[in-house]
Amino acid sequence: MADYTLREVQEQVDTWVQEVGKGYWTPHEILARLVEEVGETARLINHLHGTKKKKDSEPTQELGGELADILFAVICLANSQDIDLQEAFEQMMIKYTARDKERYK
Amino acid sequence: MADYTLREVQEQVDTWVQEVGKGYWTPHEILARLVEEVGETARLINHLHGTKKKKDSEPTQELGGELADILFAVICLANSQDIDLQEAFEQMMIKYTARDKERYK
Amino acid sequence: MADYTLREVQEQVDTWVQEVGKGYWTPHEILARLVEEVGETARLINHLHGTKKKKDSEPTQELGGELADILFAVICLANSQDIDLQEAFEQMMIKYTARDKERYK
Amino acid sequence: MADYTLREVQEQVDTWVQEVGKGYWTPHEILARLVEEVGETARLINHLHGTKKKKDSEPTQELGGELADILFAVICLANSQDIDLQEAFEQMMIKYTARDKERYK
Repeated sequence: MADYTLREVQEQVDTWVQEVGKGYWTPHEILARLVEEVGETARLINHLHGTKKKKDSEPTQELGGELADILFAVICLANSQDIDLQEAFEQMMIKYTARDKERYK
Repeated sequence: MADYTLREVQEQVDTWVQEVGKGYWTPHEILARLVEEVGETARLINHLHGTKKKKDSEPTQELGGELADILFAVICLANSQDIDLQEAFEQMMIKYTARDKERYK
Repeated sequence: MADYTLREVQEQVDTWVQEVGKGYWTPHEILARLVEEVGETARLINHLHGTKKKKDSEPTQELGGELADILFAVICLANSQDIDLQEAFEQMMIKYTARDKERYK
Repeated sequence: MADYTLREVQEQVDTWVQEVGKGYWTPHEILARLVEEVGETARLINHLHGTKKKKDSEPTQELGGELADILFAVICLANSQDIDLQEAFEQMMIKYTARDKERYK
């Protein structure tokens, strides 16, 4: 399958939310969903990398699923507020790189 | 500028982490960073949409910056565990759509 | 039953962790547990107060359970780092009250 | 100073919120505040215990302050929903202890 661009991913989520989800939740509700998904990722990281490791059959695949759930919530928040993630990503990389140059020069 | 694919975004972050960040942190440390960024997003959502709204000059741009920071942490976690986010995203959309058909039929 | 003090609560958790839990986890692991519990609270708040409300039989009791789980994780973090929560709580109330006086004078 | 009970702590926070804070926020807003405070704790744990440790003058005291901030948000959520934290705490300890007996017998 062809590689998705960030913008295509935002469009796919928008189509799903409009057709299936019946529109976007409020920012606070999407945030709560994001927090729920981060919580499930935290649980899994303790299972996979904590003191009390558990034996899972497909651990990495499961972690991929949790990260995709986080990504979905982030995109919902972005879409509902008309944020272009590619632009935000580019700005961030510029900021990180500039900050770094300052730090190590 | 050309649109980035999810895989190009993962590669850009990998290049940055290898060259500037001196390698990936542990999953628990990246999780903590992710939680920090989600916390800053939460603070901003209360400022923008809470009872005690504050007047910010560039609120949406700032929220975009926070979401990009979350995205960066998610990609670090994915990269450090050899997770392909496009594949995880596709699986998630299939799961969400199937779950929905079940729910409304 | 007699009311517990914050210090008695810290001692009860310490006894449980030493006898049953076999000692404290690392700060990062306890943080991940805390994040997991906050995530479950977030899920419940969306159920109880979000757009897609669900009908639960004992919702408030369930929320109390989640808050107690958060409290447990916070106390584990405090105990493992020799932090006295009563002292920290007193300092916080002093800080909050001072900040407020500054704000409204 | 005399030791505070959990119930006294809930009352102190209630007095503060009614007199200074002008009433409780919505559950979603308090959750967002809780997430913000957990995020600051995560940042501090990376500083104190992560790969890139930083030298802080009063690190443990600072962590105590963050935990007190989390406690404050948890108590606001409890108070606003008429939850008695001591009762919730007792129920939790009973549940944890029962679960443990089951696990190791």
